[in-house]
Amino acid sequence: QPLRKYAVTLEPPSLQDQTDDWSRLRRELARRYDLQELQASLPVLRKLGRVLREGEWKVTVVVELDARDRPDGPPRLIDVLPGEHLGSLWAVAIDIGTTSNHVWLVDLISGEVMAQKADYNGQIARGEDVISRIIYASKGNGLEELQRLVMETLNRLLQQAAQERSIRTDEIYKAVVAGNSTMIHLFAGIPPESIRLMPFITTVNQVPTFVAREIDLRINPEATVDCLPGVASYVGADITAGVVSSGMCDAEGLTLFVDIGTNGEMALGDCTWLITCACSAGPAFEGGGVMHGMRATAGAIEEVWINAETDEASYRVIAGEAPGDEKPRGICGSGLISLLAEMFVAGVMDKSGNIRDPAGFGKPEGYRERVREGKHGLEYVIAWAEETATGEDIVITAVDIDNLLRAKAAMYAGFSILARSVGLTLADVAQVLIGGAVGQYINVEKAIQIGMLPDMPYERFHFLGNTSVRGAYVALLSRDKRQR
Amino acid sequence: QPLRKYAVTLEPPSLQDQTDDWSRLRRELARRYDLQELQASLPVLRKLGRVLREGEWKVTVVVELDARDRPDGPPRLIDVLPGEHLGSLWAVAIDIGTTSNHVWLVDLISGEVMAQKADYNGQIARGEDVISRIIYASKGNGLEELQRLVMETLNRLLQQAAQERSIRTDEIYKAVVAGNSTMIHLFAGIPPESIRLMPFITTVNQVPTFVAREIDLRINPEATVDCLPGVASYVGADITAGVVSSGMCDAEGLTLFVDIGTNGEMALGDCTWLITCACSAGPAFEGGGVMHGMRATAGAIEEVWINAETDEASYRVIAGEAPGDEKPRGICGSGLISLLAEMFVAGVMDKSGNIRDPAGFGKPEGYRERVREGKHGLEYVIAWAEETATGEDIVITAVDIDNLLRAKAAMYAGFSILARSVGLTLADVAQVLIGGAVGQYINVEKAIQIGMLPDMPYERFHFLGNTSVRGAYVALLSRDKRQR
Repeated sequence: QPLRKYAVTLEPPSLQDQTDDWSRLRRELARRYDLQELQASLPVLRKLGRVLREGEWKVTVVVELDARDRPDGPPRLIDVLPGEHLGSLWAVAIDIGTTSNHVWLVDLISGEVMAQKADYNGQIARGEDVISRIIYASKGNGLEELQRLVMETLNRLLQQAAQERSIRTDEIYKAVVAGNSTMIHLFAGIPPESIRLMPFITTVNQVPTFVAREIDLRINPEATVDCLPGVASYVGADITAGVVSSGMCDAEGLTLFVDIGTNGEMALGDCTWLITCACSAGPAFEGGGVMHGMRATAGAIEEVWINAETDEASYRVIAGEAPGDEKPRGICGSGLISLLAEMFVAGVMDKSGNIRDPAGFGKPEGYRERVREGKHGLEYVIAWAEETATGEDIVITAVDIDNLLRAKAAMYAGFSILARSVGLTLADVAQVLIGGAVGQYINVEKAIQIGMLPDMPYERFHFLGNTSVRGAYVALLSRDKRQR
Repeated sequence: QPLRKYAVTLEPPSLQDQTDDWSRLRRELARRYDLQELQASLPVLRKLGRVLREGEWKVTVVVELDARDRPDGPPRLIDVLPGEHLGSLWAVAIDIGTTSNHVWLVDLISGEVMAQKADYNGQIARGEDVISRIIYASKGNGLEELQRLVMETLNRLLQQAAQERSIRTDEIYKAVVAGNSTMIHLFAGIPPESIRLMPFITTVNQVPTFVAREIDLRINPEATVDCLPGVASYVGADITAGVVSSGMCDAEGLTLFVDIGTNGEMALGDCTWLITCACSAGPAFEGGGVMHGMRATAGAIEEVWINAETDEASYRVIAGEAPGDEKPRGICGSGLISLLAEMFVAGVMDKSGNIRDPAGFGKPEGYRERVREGKHGLEYVIAWAEETATGEDIVITAVDIDNLLRAKAAMYAGFSILARSVGLTLADVAQVLIGGAVGQYINVEKAIQIGMLPDMPYERFHFLGNTSVRGAYVALLSRDKRQR
């Protein structure tokens, strides 16, 4: 990978050799490590003299090879530290989802992910989907505000990840960033306006690399920030990252890759060709627009069973580390998929997604208890207040179900149209690779039952978790993968 | 020269061609003008979408070829403007002297200097010479303060120059900067500490190019700032600039180049070899450390005559544009040289620089009137209060004379030692090229009389004015000269 550390000892200056500090360092790095034409920015030069003397002419340099995305570009000096510090070299992979943000802290020496943090994107309060964010960004200081909000989320996650490993955030020397085109525009402070207007184009699909201080991302201020390239307004860097990290781009048989997020993007093809499309799913599977929805973290109901005779619900909760975490706080995407399937099979909900009226026909007592009129129409109680961490009933409402049905239908429409547009059917697909933080725990059978995934043998489905942040991680580790 | 403007008309995007804005612009610039691998920074990308649409897909781009000092480096997009604007292309040459700052506003289309502004360096209040500035910079926020002070001076001069030509300062797209090594370090915010400590080295002699927004220089924020390269701690970019702009580096005969500033730097050689040295002259010839000293601007006494019989002084003042400017406000470098020579010849001052005691021996009445005991020892009145613009007598004191003698002696020592060190004498010198804002009006005969310049035929001396800012100007216009 292109980020490196080198320890180097310089001959101290003397009246016989008055070479300036910067030339002295460059000369030795060229001689010892063949680093030609090393570049440096003012902030690094400003500390150079002090660090060389503090380290008594023994220093560790952090260098980015072929900076600026050009394979023949010159190397860039990112930092210089007194003494020898070759034990670790930190970088970060970032996924900016419309709903959720993910940060993986990586030690490039071992290549291992050392901490993972995730949270809702702070922009959610300004609109749930990309279109409402674009509109918000076009008014007054909206763009600056949205950029600040996502940076606050990311900087908090970075701080948490660094704390977990007892490092300072300025020891993080590179960020690779994936996300949809709108999220990348907002992250970089570029107006996303034209993305939602005919003929739907971005200002830039392949953002040139820049340094962290230019956008107030709190890692080392001179760290390279590399936004992965997108393809179009609605097929962004999160999908290119997923296509690479899922292995789809090297697949032999016909492969369908699906990224389940606030938008559902998908790609169909193999190692020789690729076609993509995107559909607006909404944030329902990430817990947005669903009354008791939440992300797939500790306390989330991830699977539901409904007893077809009693209509009583039971469930499994994602366990946390703290005692008491076994109590549910809400329900995540996989729990919602499971819930919908069970409600349908048990007859709690009809084929159109309507919760059956308890007064309607002969239903057991459990049903009449669990179904009731709420603020958002009829609602079904999954967990009673005394069982939950919040002390409130956890329910699903008619409005929640509407949002979920639209999301799953959008996705299914995407698969079908994509296949049909190249003269294929979903039956031709040899494997389905599913990405998205929501996708990790999905019960395939139930997802097929509700018409979210195409009906095919279970073993063809592979759940890969967040393929976007994984793509950023892969690009951090390998120049070839980044190039791919 | 490497800064260019191009007008370009793009095919508007459509559903058939959804190429993003940035790729669309690059594609057309590559096709029309063979600009390959054009680079852009975030601030330019942030305005790109708006400007393309505002100009209805006809725009003017400002491009720096081979940015980053590398002849094979990629071109860089500095600005994009709606519509066609090829009439002018502004840049600025800057000289940062320890005592005086000079700014030349240049139109690169015609290659002409369109405005010249100069003023004292705002850092003077924090120390008169480079050593005291370095000490000041090493304490507390001294470095930040000194950087801010010189930036205030430069930004004020830029504002004045822009106003004179009715342009906005953000229409200035490049700055080439000359100055001694300490001034360049302070300008760039690099600690200059090691310059004054054994073995006297800089952090960097050849500062990499950066952009104006990094140092709060108020021209276009994306403008390239190119600090010319220095040679050593006390032979800086002002001297390399002077060696190029004076033509010394192309001279056939043995040439002595002298830059008269707060430090006196000099170079001896011809087009095949060069040796340099520096001597600490102090700011006396720029009006610093002299009670009524001033820069060579309107109101400065630039030549003095003393009647050997009456000991009465007469003088010539640099004329200004406003009425009343013919009255003197002070005395500039050339005036001081002239004054010293006349005082010596008329017997007002002895060979050691002491003003003769009026009570000492038979002197005319004019002498007794004009010489008197002041706060700084004996002083001689050059202009009476009723003749001056300030309503005060203009005098020279014993302390002033001490400072001037040290300055001229330092310079003469420099010439002599420089020549001797290569086995030559000053008589071997075919031409003496004299730079420095102070040098423009010097009376050679008098400068020889006081032992400031070597005694040789007058026609060998050539006064070139500020060769440092001229070198920056030459480097703006020509890549070859910059490379030289």
